[in-house]
Formats: sequence, structure tokens, C-alpha cells
Amino acid sequence: MALIVQKYGGTSVGSIERIRNVARRVAHFHGQGHQLVIVPSAMAGETNRLLAMAREISPDPNPRELDVVAATGEQVTIGLLAIALQELGLRARSYTGGQVRILTDNSYTKARILDIDEANMRRDLADGTIVIVAGFQGVDADGNITTLGRGGSDTSGVALAAALKADECQIYTDVDGVYTTDPRIVPEARRLDTVTFEEMLEMASLGSKVLQIRSVEFAGKYKVKLRVLSAFDDPQSAAEGTLITFEEDDTMEQAIISAIAFNRDEAKISVMGVEDKPGIAHSIVGPVAAANLDVDMIVQNIGASGHTDFSFTVSRGEYLKTMEVLANERGKGFTAREIIGDNKVCKVSVVGIGMRSHVGIASKMFKALADEGINIQMISTSEIKISVVIDEKYLELAVRVLHKAFGLENAPVQPA
Amino acid sequence: MALIVQKYGGTSVGSIERIRNVARRVAHFHGQGHQLVIVPSAMAGETNRLLAMAREISPDPNPRELDVVAATGEQVTIGLLAIALQELGLRARSYTGGQVRILTDNSYTKARILDIDEANMRRDLADGTIVIVAGFQGVDADGNITTLGRGGSDTSGVALAAALKADECQIYTDVDGVYTTDPRIVPEARRLDTVTFEEMLEMASLGSKVLQIRSVEFAGKYKVKLRVLSAFDDPQSAAEGTLITFEEDDTMEQAIISAIAFNRDEAKISVMGVEDKPGIAHSIVGPVAAANLDVDMIVQNIGASGHTDFSFTVSRGEYLKTMEVLANERGKGFTAREIIGDNKVCKVSVVGIGMRSHVGIASKMFKALADEGINIQMISTSEIKISVVIDEKYLELAVRVLHKAFGLENAPVQPA
Repeated sequence: MALIVQKYGGTSVGSIERIRNVARRVAHFHGQGHQLVIVPSAMAGETNRLLAMAREISPDPNPRELDVVAATGEQVTIGLLAIALQELGLRARSYTGGQVRILTDNSYTKARILDIDEANMRRDLADGTIVIVAGFQGVDADGNITTLGRGGSDTSGVALAAALKADECQIYTDVDGVYTTDPRIVPEARRLDTVTFEEMLEMASLGSKVLQIRSVEFAGKYKVKLRVLSAFDDPQSAAEGTLITFEEDDTMEQAIISAIAFNRDEAKISVMGVEDKPGIAHSIVGPVAAANLDVDMIVQNIGASGHTDFSFTVSRGEYLKTMEVLANERGKGFTAREIIGDNKVCKVSVVGIGMRSHVGIASKMFKALADEGINIQMISTSEIKISVVIDEKYLELAVRVLHKAFGLENAPVQPA
Repeated sequence: MALIVQKYGGTSVGSIERIRNVARRVAHFHGQGHQLVIVPSAMAGETNRLLAMAREISPDPNPRELDVVAATGEQVTIGLLAIALQELGLRARSYTGGQVRILTDNSYTKARILDIDEANMRRDLADGTIVIVAGFQGVDADGNITTLGRGGSDTSGVALAAALKADECQIYTDVDGVYTTDPRIVPEARRLDTVTFEEMLEMASLGSKVLQIRSVEFAGKYKVKLRVLSAFDDPQSAAEGTLITFEEDDTMEQAIISAIAFNRDEAKISVMGVEDKPGIAHSIVGPVAAANLDVDMIVQNIGASGHTDFSFTVSRGEYLKTMEVLANERGKGFTAREIIGDNKVCKVSVVGIGMRSHVGIASKMFKALADEGINIQMISTSEIKISVVIDEKYLELAVRVLHKAFGLENAPVQPA
């Protein structure tokens, strides 16, 4: 008997019939003797519908009130799923984020989980009740409703698994695992049986939509065993999905490169001709962060004649606001010759834990892109990934040539 | 400057444009210097949509979970209305029932308000913030979400007005006041400028859909000044609606009969040939009440040869369940020759505070019905109303002939 947290995405609970299917799936696992905590998202399309109403009233709705509205999507699903499980003769009980209580900070629309009270859930699990917790939401110390931001239900699932020390956190979605890249772009893309936590982290942050990055961070921090599976396969004969591992015992069997990740939601901003002196990066990024805007890649070249150029990327939705923040700050916190931006770019990355001990990955990547005439605008590297910013129109082409260049269509072979 | 609680019904907030209209109306009153607590219902149709999903999953959904689902309707509206008010440059803050906190008992789907914490609302009102409270919902002592039953937002409004000792509770709806009867049945029906609390209570319980009965009881108990108005008239030139009064100072100017009320949602049950002895009524009604079923009219005739017949009415939705309860109880708590029922009946009543001091109302009523060949199945009277149960098919005819028989199309004249 294991304690398992199962998170079901919006597509999996997108209709009454699908909610019934999830209930049958949950009943199957309950029948195997597991203790279960179920974390459903809002029904597909519901969060968008709710946010659209708020935005129809105001282009910039108050975030506290936006969360009050948005949180109802998951609240509907938990009640319906509880009813569906009870209809199958099982004991089930729903909890909103506030009822659990999932305590967050008060950063509305992108709150962070601070603490989870296990008491109610433990009591229910002990008497055989299936616990259903609304994903995506929490409550701040003053009792205000908060939401965790898009994809936050994954984070809810992992955080609950961490708090309950669950044996496994299963993320049920409309794909059956993590692939070497998006199969819609590269038909030869292959499902990975395992992927390391660090690779997953890089892939999530690079826009592989399977898991939200914060959920992977959480899983890593609290050593939660995380598995991605399809909510639509027959549970009796379900594939094992992709397990996210934390050990590197078998590094020698790892492929050098595991996946080609990409993110279309990128905008590039360059602050040209800033003074090349200590503190300049902070004077630019500081105000952006203070405005609660997320910065992704940051690149600064070696300066010449006392000046340098500073570039970074943000999500497209925050592009205009970021440009505005910088325009206001220019001449105060920093001086610059010019601030230029481009929101028609994308990011493509090669990711792999095996990259650490191998040279030549970067040159192979750059050559593959150059052979297709794709110009690289920015480069950034980490221990296990190399990312490039390129013109958006080359996204699919770049992903395809890189997938082929690194032979990802074939199962991994032992590196030489 | 007054403290006013305004309740807006589902039709008034039935679309984004209507929510904007309510915001403009609220802004108008705020501009007059009033402190405002706004209680919106769910957007028209939303509660039905939510309940239908639950019922699609289970014919008899768990009431706790049903309330979790149903309460989201009002939660959406409070957030959207707060955003709409903020968009007009006003300070506004939404509260769910749990956030206020509106403490109820744990009778899910028909909970009763036990206590209201004023602290958050007082603080907001003091700094000029418009307070928006979700109608229809509360929270029990264990933090479970509860709802007050259909029309419960009226009760929320009145209870909030009572707790805050508001100067007036205004119920905005799609009619501009209380009428002598339903204008859809009698075109000559006339809007009443005032109606006494007791008359309103009888009319509400008899199915005039303007106000929920519990809200009127609450208003009477706590002496809340209650006014029914149209949410669609221009606030600048709005009619005064109908004020529900508690004084009888001007009884002499009252019409003898104020209104013809009716209720189509009736089912009749007769327990025939029960023992005519003390405690028999309790032995029948007790188990029905214990099953949380509401009994409306109760009639028992004088018995003969040690036996009597006991009849009562319930709402049609509870008819089958009530029959089942009685079938189970028969032979245990009571013996009966026969239990018969009819769910194709309705109730029609004449209501008027002036009736107290006048005889002949009953005979006038019975004659008017007899003249049309309408058979009376049950009769029940109170100080200020006479109700009859008749075949459902005669409802409109009965209302029309009674409205005419008592001259309700004319403004009241001083009784002789």
C-alpha cells in the first residue's frame, strides 16, 4: 500500500464524462489498496473563460479579485469529482486550497506555497477516504484567496506529495510521458522512460509544456518521486510514463543529449551602451524584478571602451511592460545609448545530463544550425543545456535539425 | 450618509454588461455619500448550470460537495463586480461567505445563518471601500462551505443588514416592487407602495417570488427596513419600489386585502384513517421533519369514531421522498388505513393585514371560486390570510377572479 498523489490536468477533467473516467481510474488505484490524494485542474477552457470575463470588464483587473474569480474553476472540479467517486460507492471529500489549508504568500496570480496543513488530509486518508484537493490555489495569512499561476496545479500536486511524504506524485496529462522533443514537430520524437530531475528542470523552463517548472523544483527540493503519465490510457495496461529521477547512478548509460526543448513565448530586450561597471546588471534587472516581471535568459558580453551591451529575454506577455519599466528607469538607475527589443524570437535548447562530461556538443549544435542558415542571436549555457535565441520563423526547422543531429530518434547507446 | 445593503439578483448580474450596469448604479449611490455593502447573486443560469453538472454525475449528489460546486457561482460574481467597481475608480473588496465570516449550521444546501463577523466589513466601510459579499453561502464551524438554499442571497442581504444595523436593505430584482398579484396572470395587478411585514411573510411563503421567506423573517426579527426595487430603472429617476413596513400606525388606511398570492409548487399528501389521539400529528410530521423535508399547509379535521384524516402539503420536489418516509414509518410510529397523494395541486391565497378586523372575507373568497366551479380541496387560515388548495389547472382562473372580487386593481380606499 502506497500513498500516491495524482494530479489530473484540465483536459482529463474537461467534461462530465471525463470526470467520470478519472473517477473510475482513481477507483482502480484505490482498489489496489493505495491511499490517494487527487488534485484536479479546472475543466479545460474554464480558467480562460473566467479570466476572459474579468478582462472584458477591465484590461488590468485587480489581481486579488482575479484570483477570487479564477479559483472557482478548480472548486467546481473537486466537488464534481467527489460526487463522481461517491457515485462509485467510495468515500471522498473535497478541499479548497483554503480548507486544506495551503498557505501561500500574497503575490496574487503567482503566489508561492509556504506551508501545507496535513491534519485534515491525514484524518481522511486514515479512514479510507479519498482526498480531493483543488489545484492551483491557496490562501494567504489573512485568508485572501490566491492562485499559483498558470500550470500551478502541478505545483500543488508536488507540494502536497512533499508535505505528505507521498511515495509518488503522478501527473496525469494528455501525453504519455516526456519526449525527446515535441512529436508534432518531429514525428520521430521518442518517449523517455526516465529523465533526470535536472534535465526536466531545464526542459520545463525551456517551454516543454509537460510540467510546470516550479513543480519540478519542488520535486527536486523535497525529493518527490515524480511521474508523468497519460490520463487517457487504460489504467490496467497503462504505460509507465516517464519517471523523473534524482540519482545519477546510471549516468554511464545516459545519452549525452536527452531532448531538444524550445519556447516560442520569448521576447528579447537589449540595453545598448551601458556603463561597464559593477552593479550595472542589477540596476537594469532590479527594477524589472521589482515590477514582478520574470526574466529568463540574461547575456552580457565583454565590454569595450568602458561600455557594454546587456540583453535578456522575457515572456511576450510581459514584453511591453518590461520596455516601459526600463524606459522609466533609464537615466535614473542606469544610462544607456539605446534600448531595443524584438518579440518575434524563440529559444531552442539541447538538454542532457551527459553533456557535462563531453565536449563538442556546442560546436555540433552551432554547426547544425549554421548548415541551415539559421542565425544565432543570443547564446546561454548551463551545465546540462545550451540555449540559443533565434528568429521565431526558424523554430520548427531548428528543432528538426537538432533532433536529427543528436540522433534522438534512436534509443540511447552507451557513450564511448 | 446611510449604511445601505443592496442585494442584486441573478438577472441583474446576468452578463458582463449588466455587471457593469450594477457597478454604475452602486457608484451612483456611493457618490451620494452612502456606505455600501453589495450582495450579488450568481449570474443568471449559472447556479442551474452548476447543479445540472452535479446531477448529471449523480441523481442524488452528496450535499456537502453540491455546496462546494454551487458556491462558486456567487464567488465569480463578487470578483467580477469588484473589478467593475475598481474600473470606475472606486475602492471595492470582495468576500466569500467564509471570508466574511458568515457562520451557518451544517445543513448543506439549506443552511441557516448563526452569526456574522462584522470586523472585516467595518474596517473596509470606514475607509470608504465598497464591500461585496457573496450571497447564498456561508461556512460551518468546521470550515465546510454551505449554501442557504434557493433565493438564499436575499437572506444573506438581510442578515448582513441586521448584523451591520444598516439603515436599509434594498433588494434589486427584475420587478419594481411587490404587486397585488402576478401581472403575467392579471394585467391589472398594481404595485404596492408599502406592504406590512406580516403580509409580505404570508406572500413570500405562498410563492410570490419577489423575496425569499427567510429573508422576510430575518427582516422582521431584526427590524431591518426592507425595500424591493428594480435593478433596471435609471437610478436617478428610480421608482421607490415597495417598502416592507413593520408599523401598523396606518392600519385604517390599509386595504382589507392587499394581494392574491399563489404557489404552483405544491403536492398534497393525506394520511387517512389514523387514530384520533394525542401525539398522532407528531408521529406523522415528526419523521418528515427529521428527514429535513419542509411541510407547508397542515390540515386535520375533527375525527369520527376514533379515527381522523391528516393532510399536509410539501413542495413537489420533495413529494416522492415524503411518500417514502411515510411508507417506512407506517405501522411503526402510526397506523393508517391509506396514504394518498396528489402532486397536481396548487395553493391560492388572499392576504391582507386589514382582514383581522373584518368578517366575510372567507365567504367572499369561497363564493368567488364556487361561481367558477372551482372545487376547494383544503383550506387553511391565519390571522391575515386564507389559503385554499385547488386543482393546478384552475390556478390562473382562481387568481383572476379573486383579484377582481376584492377590487385589487383600484388603489386602496378607507374601509367602512
